[in-house]
Amino acid sequence: MVCVTRIYEKPVLNSPILIEGLPGIGFVANIAALHLIQGLKAKMFSEIRSSSFQDFAISTENGKARFPISEIYYHKGRGEERDLLILYGNTQALTTLGQYELCGRVLDIAEELGCRQIITLGGLKHQKRVEIPGLYCAASDPESLREALSLGAKVLHGHIFGVAGLLLGLGKLRGMKGFCLLAQTPGLYPDATAAQEVLRVVCKMLRLRVDLSRLDVAAEATRNILESFGFGTPSTEEKAREKPRSRWLI
Amino acid sequence: MVCVTRIYEKPVLNSPILIEGLPGIGFVANIAALHLIQGLKAKMFSEIRSSSFQDFAISTENGKARFPISEIYYHKGRGEERDLLILYGNTQALTTLGQYELCGRVLDIAEELGCRQIITLGGLKHQKRVEIPGLYCAASDPESLREALSLGAKVLHGHIFGVAGLLLGLGKLRGMKGFCLLAQTPGLYPDATAAQEVLRVVCKMLRLRVDLSRLDVAAEATRNILESFGFGTPSTEEKAREKPRSRWLI
Amino acid sequence: MVCVTRIYEKPVLNSPILIEGLPGIGFVANIAALHLIQGLKAKMFSEIRSSSFQDFAISTENGKARFPISEIYYHKGRGEERDLLILYGNTQALTTLGQYELCGRVLDIAEELGCRQIITLGGLKHQKRVEIPGLYCAASDPESLREALSLGAKVLHGHIFGVAGLLLGLGKLRGMKGFCLLAQTPGLYPDATAAQEVLRVVCKMLRLRVDLSRLDVAAEATRNILESFGFGTPSTEEKAREKPRSRWLI
Amino acid sequence: MVCVTRIYEKPVLNSPILIEGLPGIGFVANIAALHLIQGLKAKMFSEIRSSSFQDFAISTENGKARFPISEIYYHKGRGEERDLLILYGNTQALTTLGQYELCGRVLDIAEELGCRQIITLGGLKHQKRVEIPGLYCAASDPESLREALSLGAKVLHGHIFGVAGLLLGLGKLRGMKGFCLLAQTPGLYPDATAAQEVLRVVCKMLRLRVDLSRLDVAAEATRNILESFGFGTPSTEEKAREKPRSRWLI
Repeated sequence: MVCVTRIYEKPVLNSPILIEGLPGIGFVANIAALHLIQGLKAKMFSEIRSSSFQDFAISTENGKARFPISEIYYHKGRGEERDLLILYGNTQALTTLGQYELCGRVLDIAEELGCRQIITLGGLKHQKRVEIPGLYCAASDPESLREALSLGAKVLHGHIFGVAGLLLGLGKLRGMKGFCLLAQTPGLYPDATAAQEVLRVVCKMLRLRVDLSRLDVAAEATRNILESFGFGTPSTEEKAREKPRSRWLI
Repeated sequence: MVCVTRIYEKPVLNSPILIEGLPGIGFVANIAALHLIQGLKAKMFSEIRSSSFQDFAISTENGKARFPISEIYYHKGRGEERDLLILYGNTQALTTLGQYELCGRVLDIAEELGCRQIITLGGLKHQKRVEIPGLYCAASDPESLREALSLGAKVLHGHIFGVAGLLLGLGKLRGMKGFCLLAQTPGLYPDATAAQEVLRVVCKMLRLRVDLSRLDVAAEATRNILESFGFGTPSTEEKAREKPRSRWLI
Repeated sequence: MVCVTRIYEKPVLNSPILIEGLPGIGFVANIAALHLIQGLKAKMFSEIRSSSFQDFAISTENGKARFPISEIYYHKGRGEERDLLILYGNTQALTTLGQYELCGRVLDIAEELGCRQIITLGGLKHQKRVEIPGLYCAASDPESLREALSLGAKVLHGHIFGVAGLLLGLGKLRGMKGFCLLAQTPGLYPDATAAQEVLRVVCKMLRLRVDLSRLDVAAEATRNILESFGFGTPSTEEKAREKPRSRWLI
Repeated sequence: MVCVTRIYEKPVLNSPILIEGLPGIGFVANIAALHLIQGLKAKMFSEIRSSSFQDFAISTENGKARFPISEIYYHKGRGEERDLLILYGNTQALTTLGQYELCGRVLDIAEELGCRQIITLGGLKHQKRVEIPGLYCAASDPESLREALSLGAKVLHGHIFGVAGLLLGLGKLRGMKGFCLLAQTPGLYPDATAAQEVLRVVCKMLRLRVDLSRLDVAAEATRNILESFGFGTPSTEEKAREKPRSRWLI
């Protein structure tokens, strides 16, 4: 056992798009995914636990033990809406190897359900707080790039860390198209404004009918969980990760 | 080979409860498990060696080489007693990956023998020594939580490190119920008093007839082994482990 | 999943020689391989992504996401030319385990296509810049050694790090002959001169008709990619790697 | 691929004893094994390369590339001599996981050839140089312990690091008997005297007819290889390893 995957239901979907929303810089993707799940009443149908997650449990105020986990939700589009798969969770894997395996498992599930397109979300570290965070994109194929640019995003120039970058790369090897959408964020706290920018564009593109006026609720939920677990801000850790660990990558 | 599992006997048991007793904070679980095994004359039927255990052997005064190992014992309940599986050993795995795999193997065995419920034990670091150590619990399902609270434990708020936390989480993915029971301990030495508190509650719940007057014997045995191996107290190492290594776990 | 291998075509080749050209000291092998691929119009037929590569993507000026990858090209010799397999890529694996696995996958593919001989390329750190870099060789069998020496290389005395060394050793276990050819280089930048020396000898031996007058183009391409990714020179990292991590290797 | 095992011949042996001789403290086991192989003209029939060995090759004065490797030799006993399997090599694995896997592979091969008994050799760090190094032993079963003590060894009290310890422990899980024999050594150089003490006892026990007057030759060979590779003495590294990395091993 390395990853344990549970699939509780096999939804029948029409070319679903996979949206990635794991924790990361500014928790932008995480907030956006949580809001989507709640707004669309998306249904959790798969859980993944990886041996590369933390080896502990956490007990919250009510005595309920929580565990590091990834979940996949589906949403059957209503009317013009696109069908969705949403990757949500409370951690990324602790090792490079674990990250690759987690992504591989997610793509196995997505591929089997007919997914041919991936959108990964995230925050882009930006020193100054801005009124309206800028959106940046990168894509693994020209068509996706045009699509992302047409939505108002600028071309990204830099690294896309973790699952947001890996899913695109490993998806491409399976013939899946995809792009990454990052919103500027100071990255020091769960950033509802950045998440809203990202979601605004995604909803427009996928014709999702989601009320975006109260993203602060999902951000607050994320913040509360973070604080009750005593993690504080993830800024230090992310600083460490911003420095590429590569050797000879050209 | 990663884990090598040996099964010497396939006991026929009636919904056995798995009790975890590996070394940890204050050696609370370890002492409790050893005492249970001796008091109930539980029988060892399975050994697990993991590649994530230490790569050395230890020779004791009598020249007998000892190796890092996990053992599983069973107890067929007499009268009202519940059937038990007891996980005992002299180490946890050295890596996160190893911890997950060890737990996976233990659960494989437990599941096959009909186990649907897990109780993990441990110590909860507490600066001051107290007359009667407080008991704290967390559970992976509401029913187990009620059960643990009804036994006099308070709600735990914090991390459950290592195998004690992992078994609950991985068990839950297999549909097993479970709770964790921690007794306050300074954690600097094998703590018979804390082990007694934990065991008192477990024995009451499972109607086990075990004399708890001499837990100091199991604690002394644990202490002697520790000292003869030159390990001293595990306090420093545990301090290191108390700091969560997570990134972005929310 | 640990390595994901894609094979887009199964070329029919006549005893092809595998030439290794991954990034390393002075990017000598990398430049030489890129020049060979372009000069011979070699065709990419296989991609390998390893879980031991970096877990990020990189977005360049045009918004195209790039991923850490290894590629294998083939060249069907024209006239007297030998058939070739060329291993090219933008990274080596981050861990020892990953390096072994990557090499194992490459050899699996090469072996199936009838490859019985390997030439690995690289740079040999040399403090002073020299007019004409000296060539050094080591071989896993006497015949290959004679061949390399007859081409004007001197006997190497030292370590052959990474994939250049591993491919020879793992190839030998499969009965493949092979040698390593290193050119002196200060190693601080993509070194076209060193690459040219290496390639001059390889082309002569394999009767490859490749114009070697403009290796600076491949070097410049390599340099540009490096700089746009913000990696600067790999000198520090390689210094770290020059110190053997072995224990008890004799 | 993690370990690659090559078996060039399947010898028919009569209850062979496995003798371990990998590099370690004072290179005692390594010298002893090399001397046995040369003295008995034992035949190499299996090679193992592990992904947990170093990822480099080494080129010696004559341009021959050498690789980290483990080899197994066999010796068909003449007259009263016992049949032997001898594990020899130029490295141990770099990781705990690798050590377990290497031992597992060696035991797979030994078990299939009918081996039921293991003798591991090594050096025991001793500050002062002594005229005749003391011999110490530990065993995984009472019978082997008696056998080792009857040969004049004293009871060891301490750790048995690496493959010498692991082989005993993993062998025991397969029902193999075994003991470890360590000779006192300053451990700072390849120690012919310590190797001789160990070998004297082993030869007596197994009725091996080997001339032990010139162990300095094997020690010198070991020293030369070490020096030509620029490793110097392994003392620092071994100091690091002497400190147990265990957590909670009791």
